[in-house]
Amino acid sequence: MDLTAPSSALAAAFAEAVRLLPSGGPGLLLRADAHGLVLAGNDHERAVRLACTALTHTDGEVLVPARPLAETLKVLDEPEVRLVVEGSRLAIRTARGRFALPLLDRSSYLDGGELPVVGSLDGGLLSRALAAVAPTAARDDALPMFTGVRVRSGPGGLSLLASDRFRMAAAEVPWSGGEVDALVPAALLAEVGKQVSGSVSVHADVNRFGLSWGRSTVTTAVLDGGFLTEDSISTGAVETRLTLAADALAAAVRRTSLYAGPRGVVTLGVQDGSVRVAGTDPRAGEAEEEVKSTVDGNRLAPSYQARYLLDALRPFTGGEVVLAIQPGLRATILTTAATSLRYYVMPMQPR
Amino acid sequence: MDLTAPSSALAAAFAEAVRLLPSGGPGLLLRADAHGLVLAGNDHERAVRLACTALTHTDGEVLVPARPLAETLKVLDEPEVRLVVEGSRLAIRTARGRFALPLLDRSSYLDGGELPVVGSLDGGLLSRALAAVAPTAARDDALPMFTGVRVRSGPGGLSLLASDRFRMAAAEVPWSGGEVDALVPAALLAEVGKQVSGSVSVHADVNRFGLSWGRSTVTTAVLDGGFLTEDSISTGAVETRLTLAADALAAAVRRTSLYAGPRGVVTLGVQDGSVRVAGTDPRAGEAEEEVKSTVDGNRLAPSYQARYLLDALRPFTGGEVVLAIQPGLRATILTTAATSLRYYVMPMQPR
Repeated sequence: MDLTAPSSALAAAFAEAVRLLPSGGPGLLLRADAHGLVLAGNDHERAVRLACTALTHTDGEVLVPARPLAETLKVLDEPEVRLVVEGSRLAIRTARGRFALPLLDRSSYLDGGELPVVGSLDGGLLSRALAAVAPTAARDDALPMFTGVRVRSGPGGLSLLASDRFRMAAAEVPWSGGEVDALVPAALLAEVGKQVSGSVSVHADVNRFGLSWGRSTVTTAVLDGGFLTEDSISTGAVETRLTLAADALAAAVRRTSLYAGPRGVVTLGVQDGSVRVAGTDPRAGEAEEEVKSTVDGNRLAPSYQARYLLDALRPFTGGEVVLAIQPGLRATILTTAATSLRYYVMPMQPR
Repeated sequence: MDLTAPSSALAAAFAEAVRLLPSGGPGLLLRADAHGLVLAGNDHERAVRLACTALTHTDGEVLVPARPLAETLKVLDEPEVRLVVEGSRLAIRTARGRFALPLLDRSSYLDGGELPVVGSLDGGLLSRALAAVAPTAARDDALPMFTGVRVRSGPGGLSLLASDRFRMAAAEVPWSGGEVDALVPAALLAEVGKQVSGSVSVHADVNRFGLSWGRSTVTTAVLDGGFLTEDSISTGAVETRLTLAADALAAAVRRTSLYAGPRGVVTLGVQDGSVRVAGTDPRAGEAEEEVKSTVDGNRLAPSYQARYLLDALRPFTGGEVVLAIQPGLRATILTTAATSLRYYVMPMQPR
């Protein structure tokens, strides 16, 4: 194997491979041919195949340790790099330097089979929807149900839904294809969501779920543990609607929450034409800030865990958000005219 | 007390007070008068007084908790802020918000006495010398001798010297004043070094050491535990001098050290007109990179702990550095024509 490639493109591809396959698996299979370079890796849960532009001088296929290669490429400051097999080494050559990694035993790598294509959707729309929905899943080892994104085909498109029990986010992406209903690890989807572009194919069978774009593919085992549904949240008692700038509200919540003490609870006091965001704690003192808002409905004063409210506002960054508030401890629903996103956040008992 | 001040200046002063006095002490004393605002704090080791531009409407003096105030000021996004005492609270008021902190009991704060002035020097030169010397001291709880900077007056100026046993750095700053010889905590000097400007006064008595500039002062208890001296390092056997760009050498060391295995040792192989930087490890592979250099002397090949060599090169960033290499395990001396700095780094046994 012998190829030349732009350092930055190569570094990005290897960094992505390491992020998508943190276990490393048995190693990364590099395959160079007239189409360029393909990086392939898998472990017992995931399979990753990423394409990278390269000028191949000699075709070839070798198995290498991913992380050291990624780290070397990351710190190179020359624009172009050559990858060439030299005996039992893969050499990374630049104008003034040579870095040589031991090759791994090719026979320890097994290719996974291909997954059937179920349908396709737009990468940009998928990317935006995943950025909003996937972070809502639990990060720790909660019940599997709360660490995944439910991906389901329906009349409104491919719906994405995640919850960690304290909040829930749901969105639809236009979809042309057959039936899917899978619980897919949210952390992986969040990462893949940053990469997809152009037309994206969705692959699935009973046990696995995959996305492919260009010459790249990421496949994962699906989670098993029951399905979440949006219908379990009651939304019929909305009394007040606030329409305001998401960033202004988030900034006020961030500042007043410094005074909210260990509970971290802030209150949104609805007034005429504004919301008074307040945090208070006998030891920390008290803070309040006024944020302009269109107010439609009653003067409620719901309280929220500040960090959940901030998470809920993040997908609406840079635009307007509508908060539909229900009395008591019923969910508040955050939406915007611009997207299909629904974000539910649970209020707290006031002090 | 009632004053108005630019948010950014106030935020910077409070952030600095928190950094210089991480324990917080009994609280921060704010004193506002026609000259502006002064922040004063102390604990059993340190005393800090920082001045800040402010327009005082009503003179006054209050004791407040430093950290919450610093955190609030840091996140404000309005250009101006008002600090005003309201009953038992200090209120931070902006156009749309009010943040109120409980006042602390003024009687729990005791002013330290003043320290006599011993001499003065230029803040810019002191700042540069401290940036090079102070990081060479040990960070952990080593013998006190290795966690301080020895500050000593002498014929060449005020000399600064620090070592953690594996490397040593020394520099002089032009000095007009009397005699000083003190071991001063390096971490504090490193922080103060970033702040000093203009003419800086040096204060000292047997137990304390202080620096003042403008209306600001920082005082600390000195360390006790013996004094380091530069004479303990032999420098008479230099065989080779390399003159090269510090950044190019540092970049090559950083990259090749990825292949240096757990020991992290790189070798500088002196050649004609260049140095071959090499790292190798049976498992990691091997790396080498060539760096252009003026070479004067024999073809030695000393080895170094990569991270110590990188630390040693840092003060020479952006310029040329001269490496004076002695054979065997004798110290290598890094200098440059532009400053008085001498940096000593110990070579390692090659593998």
